[in-house]
Amino acid sequence: MAFNAHASGLYVIAATPFHPDGRLDLESVDRLTDFYLSCGATGLTVLGVMGEAPKLDAAESTTLVQRFVQRASGVPVIVGVTAPGFAPMRSLARSVMDAGAAGVMIAPPSTLRTDDQIVTYYAQAREAIGEDVPFALQDYPLAFSVVMTPEVLRRIVTDNPSCVMLKIEDWPSLEKISALRRLEQAGRMRRTSILTGNGGLFVDFEMERGADGAMTGYAFPDLLAEVVRLIGAGERDKAHDRFDAHLPLLRYEQQPGIGLAVRKYILQRRGALASEAQRKPSIALSAAARAEVDYLLARLAARDPRARLV
Amino acid sequence: MAFNAHASGLYVIAATPFHPDGRLDLESVDRLTDFYLSCGATGLTVLGVMGEAPKLDAAESTTLVQRFVQRASGVPVIVGVTAPGFAPMRSLARSVMDAGAAGVMIAPPSTLRTDDQIVTYYAQAREAIGEDVPFALQDYPLAFSVVMTPEVLRRIVTDNPSCVMLKIEDWPSLEKISALRRLEQAGRMRRTSILTGNGGLFVDFEMERGADGAMTGYAFPDLLAEVVRLIGAGERDKAHDRFDAHLPLLRYEQQPGIGLAVRKYILQRRGALASEAQRKPSIALSAAARAEVDYLLARLAARDPRARLV
Amino acid sequence: MAFNAHASGLYVIAATPFHPDGRLDLESVDRLTDFYLSCGATGLTVLGVMGEAPKLDAAESTTLVQRFVQRASGVPVIVGVTAPGFAPMRSLARSVMDAGAAGVMIAPPSTLRTDDQIVTYYAQAREAIGEDVPFALQDYPLAFSVVMTPEVLRRIVTDNPSCVMLKIEDWPSLEKISALRRLEQAGRMRRTSILTGNGGLFVDFEMERGADGAMTGYAFPDLLAEVVRLIGAGERDKAHDRFDAHLPLLRYEQQPGIGLAVRKYILQRRGALASEAQRKPSIALSAAARAEVDYLLARLAARDPRARLV
Amino acid sequence: MAFNAHASGLYVIAATPFHPDGRLDLESVDRLTDFYLSCGATGLTVLGVMGEAPKLDAAESTTLVQRFVQRASGVPVIVGVTAPGFAPMRSLARSVMDAGAAGVMIAPPSTLRTDDQIVTYYAQAREAIGEDVPFALQDYPLAFSVVMTPEVLRRIVTDNPSCVMLKIEDWPSLEKISALRRLEQAGRMRRTSILTGNGGLFVDFEMERGADGAMTGYAFPDLLAEVVRLIGAGERDKAHDRFDAHLPLLRYEQQPGIGLAVRKYILQRRGALASEAQRKPSIALSAAARAEVDYLLARLAARDPRARLV
Repeated sequence: MAFNAHASGLYVIAATPFHPDGRLDLESVDRLTDFYLSCGATGLTVLGVMGEAPKLDAAESTTLVQRFVQRASGVPVIVGVTAPGFAPMRSLARSVMDAGAAGVMIAPPSTLRTDDQIVTYYAQAREAIGEDVPFALQDYPLAFSVVMTPEVLRRIVTDNPSCVMLKIEDWPSLEKISALRRLEQAGRMRRTSILTGNGGLFVDFEMERGADGAMTGYAFPDLLAEVVRLIGAGERDKAHDRFDAHLPLLRYEQQPGIGLAVRKYILQRRGALASEAQRKPSIALSAAARAEVDYLLARLAARDPRARLV
Repeated sequence: MAFNAHASGLYVIAATPFHPDGRLDLESVDRLTDFYLSCGATGLTVLGVMGEAPKLDAAESTTLVQRFVQRASGVPVIVGVTAPGFAPMRSLARSVMDAGAAGVMIAPPSTLRTDDQIVTYYAQAREAIGEDVPFALQDYPLAFSVVMTPEVLRRIVTDNPSCVMLKIEDWPSLEKISALRRLEQAGRMRRTSILTGNGGLFVDFEMERGADGAMTGYAFPDLLAEVVRLIGAGERDKAHDRFDAHLPLLRYEQQPGIGLAVRKYILQRRGALASEAQRKPSIALSAAARAEVDYLLARLAARDPRARLV
Repeated sequence: MAFNAHASGLYVIAATPFHPDGRLDLESVDRLTDFYLSCGATGLTVLGVMGEAPKLDAAESTTLVQRFVQRASGVPVIVGVTAPGFAPMRSLARSVMDAGAAGVMIAPPSTLRTDDQIVTYYAQAREAIGEDVPFALQDYPLAFSVVMTPEVLRRIVTDNPSCVMLKIEDWPSLEKISALRRLEQAGRMRRTSILTGNGGLFVDFEMERGADGAMTGYAFPDLLAEVVRLIGAGERDKAHDRFDAHLPLLRYEQQPGIGLAVRKYILQRRGALASEAQRKPSIALSAAARAEVDYLLARLAARDPRARLV
Repeated sequence: MAFNAHASGLYVIAATPFHPDGRLDLESVDRLTDFYLSCGATGLTVLGVMGEAPKLDAAESTTLVQRFVQRASGVPVIVGVTAPGFAPMRSLARSVMDAGAAGVMIAPPSTLRTDDQIVTYYAQAREAIGEDVPFALQDYPLAFSVVMTPEVLRRIVTDNPSCVMLKIEDWPSLEKISALRRLEQAGRMRRTSILTGNGGLFVDFEMERGADGAMTGYAFPDLLAEVVRLIGAGERDKAHDRFDAHLPLLRYEQQPGIGLAVRKYILQRRGALASEAQRKPSIALSAAARAEVDYLLARLAARDPRARLV
């Protein structure tokens, strides 16, 4: 399925695999890609907020993207190109598009305040990366301190034909998704794909409000793909049953600061990564936290046999 | 149980009842107090962040506190006195202590940055309210943008004997609670009560890390009191079973902006409030949101007969 | 001259006089008022950012305003009523209007982000204080972290007939003043008074861009009044000559944190205050800073005999 | 004079020259370097906040630095390497050191809050760039929202032997400079060079408080060099006379947003740049602003014949 205004399903925010000594672990990129695809991913997002992007230099970023693209064999890979300026954004965007990426994702700099500043920023970003590069806009006020109203999103979508996807992780997101879909239905806004984030914490209801899928990196992407599928198939109760079984762990993984360590630990335990290592600087799991995750994993396995670890 | 460094259990962040026309609903204060006490509250916190404090003028604040204190008949009531300056903080603190409050709670102004600024602020606040007024410190970076390390909290506790309680709702809170208890065990820090917030989203593990209880306002305070009790009694699995059943709703209620509307709607449906009205400015539940809450309530009642609404 | 959409000249941000022991010094209120009027003030602003407002409780605030109003004998006094909620804002606004204030001034809370949030806030504030209370809007992003475009200001002015004055201390302010006056000239915006702040640092050019005057508290209000008058009279070079002579000191006084101490020290040396005392918490002048101010005062007196201290 | 803990004088924040079509203007780099050296610069800072660094990609950054280094023929060039992560910081630092830079400058990311976070950040940054790369720390809370106490600076200087310079542009800076020098005199802190910023707005007094010089880009660097020299020579009155003559323009140039346009316009009028062009996105001078600058230049020339433009 292409990366365009009708994209749906699950775009996994891909973890970046490292060896314990800090080198990129490219073999694990293959393993992880296979894992994500087997979980039902319809796309991958590389170098996202939870992808340790700022810890990679430009050459490593390109190498990483190439490897994901090669292994994903046709499943679209989009790449976070958020940067402190338009020149490095353009460089990275061109480099990853050359490497086979299907598009890019752009978050706003935290200095933006007024509606017009935000709209102008995205026009400049689109110009910087080129009209031919489709992009997703990341709307994540908790992380970026930039608040975009539905009307501002409408203006950005209207001004920039290459904006094909909105990643909505405003908090709360539900009314915003409804508002955006109402704008579409009223003919005031072009259709875009809407995927959601926030670690999947509201994906159950977000799908019902009109989202096309999720873009997040919870260590059980299979669960996310299943919830997306079940809601799409109208199996509401079953979707919630499955989701609720995962919620205690999903919530735990969503903790700021420590969340990535939780995620990589589970991915390693599930065999998707050779090592849970993060590149420095990073926060490690304490023994207590590790035991808490183990406890949650055990409880989850008891409720959901498919979540049993080997 | 007194409001002191050994306080434990559940301090409910009390909602503030209004009539649909915006007047204070003092009869509902009685009803709500009875409800909270029947749920197992060991204390009440009035005029907290979710208590619509900024919408009350000084006279109303005092009237409200008086009514809660009278009805709580001995259960300690503490009052949020966070203010833009020390003069209004002092006025409000004196007024509510005269009205029978057991103590106050103080959050930091968002302008504080350095460790020393934070420590100095609390010394000045303690001087403003008077040495004889016990207080809880609210550590809630997500809301206040002030980050306090365990060491800064240690300094504040050490400098201010009247600081008897820490409300820890840092995110994540788990390692912080562990760190604070380690400081105590190492003899480097006086004992304080530690209660937790964040809508109860981590209360299951926070109790195991050393918290004495919870201070939050989830519309099923009975669940919070039960989890606190079960963990205290060593019944870990049972505590998590009970907690997990509520987590889908609890998570929904914790959404910024809309959370208070969810909470008041449920409290009204549970008979604890005559009206779900908030004083303006406020955000109302959309029909879609209301239906989502109803769905979550129905699912909860199916899992937990005690959560069935009349 | 009334406080309305045609107000002009100099509104002095009044200092709040204290005795060294922290009590309000009401005698100095009289002395200070006389001083300001003799300097050419056309209005006074009490309880502004530099008026130590948060250090006064409600009763003191009213007492202070009453005293200024009585002594100003007809010169309009407006009062800062910025508050953490609309209830205390309403209380204070009513109390000071009863005490004879001509109007109030309202700054935005730092939590506002989107254009609509800002516009909505001022509609709610106007409703809270009452349609009959004329108000000035304070546009000061450096202090409040809220950025208002000319278009947002236009919407607020249009929505709220009682908004009669804009205090523009955006940074930079010059293009903004021009933009607002263009909106007026194009018939898109009702006429309002525009006064400027930022300690007067750009008053020379702000007047030429269309401001009606200044609202700030530099310890030589006579200089500000003179510059306003000279620019109005078309005496550009003379205005700049006068202004430039003061700029080294004016700049020194505008330092954040320490600025109020500089201002009160000079006011005390000029005989306008019995004491330079601030109420705690406050930052005192170091010996080095005091010597620097003395040096600047001496240099100023050498250039401008009227600035000579007794 | 080397870039080390005894560096003094004037480090000019170099403008980045562009052609009107947005290409780097390398010929103007030579011209500008000659101009800065003729003005008395003892060092250059390339890719600073006012150097349009985020508009250059990695290759351009290196090319620019090389050209400045070659032309400066021995005068030390330091380079801003502030980056969103340690990997791009390391890449840029190595690249510019290979190109002949004498050292780098590092500003803190705006997410840092606690004292420990700041100290840890600089330890990680030093490790990232390598122990052998001397660096300046930029302390500029107004721009970066990070507040560093003298004690935090002392810890950073102590932990990182390669930190040889503090660029202090806190606001106010005067007491901070005094506090840092007192720490040195008390033997609690290693000697570092202290240069000051803020567009030079307080350089007159900062020198007297113990600064070694200025690091800023005011379009009359000759004035800054002269003030630094005169204060060093004990000619206080003369230094202030010279400084005060420039203050009206210097203040005008320091306006956020528009400041760089003012600076480049003057540099172009002084013959130091072929074009005043900024690379997009940029803010242009309005006709009114241009006229104001011309007026200030004319007034300056009348007071100071050396400031006369050709």
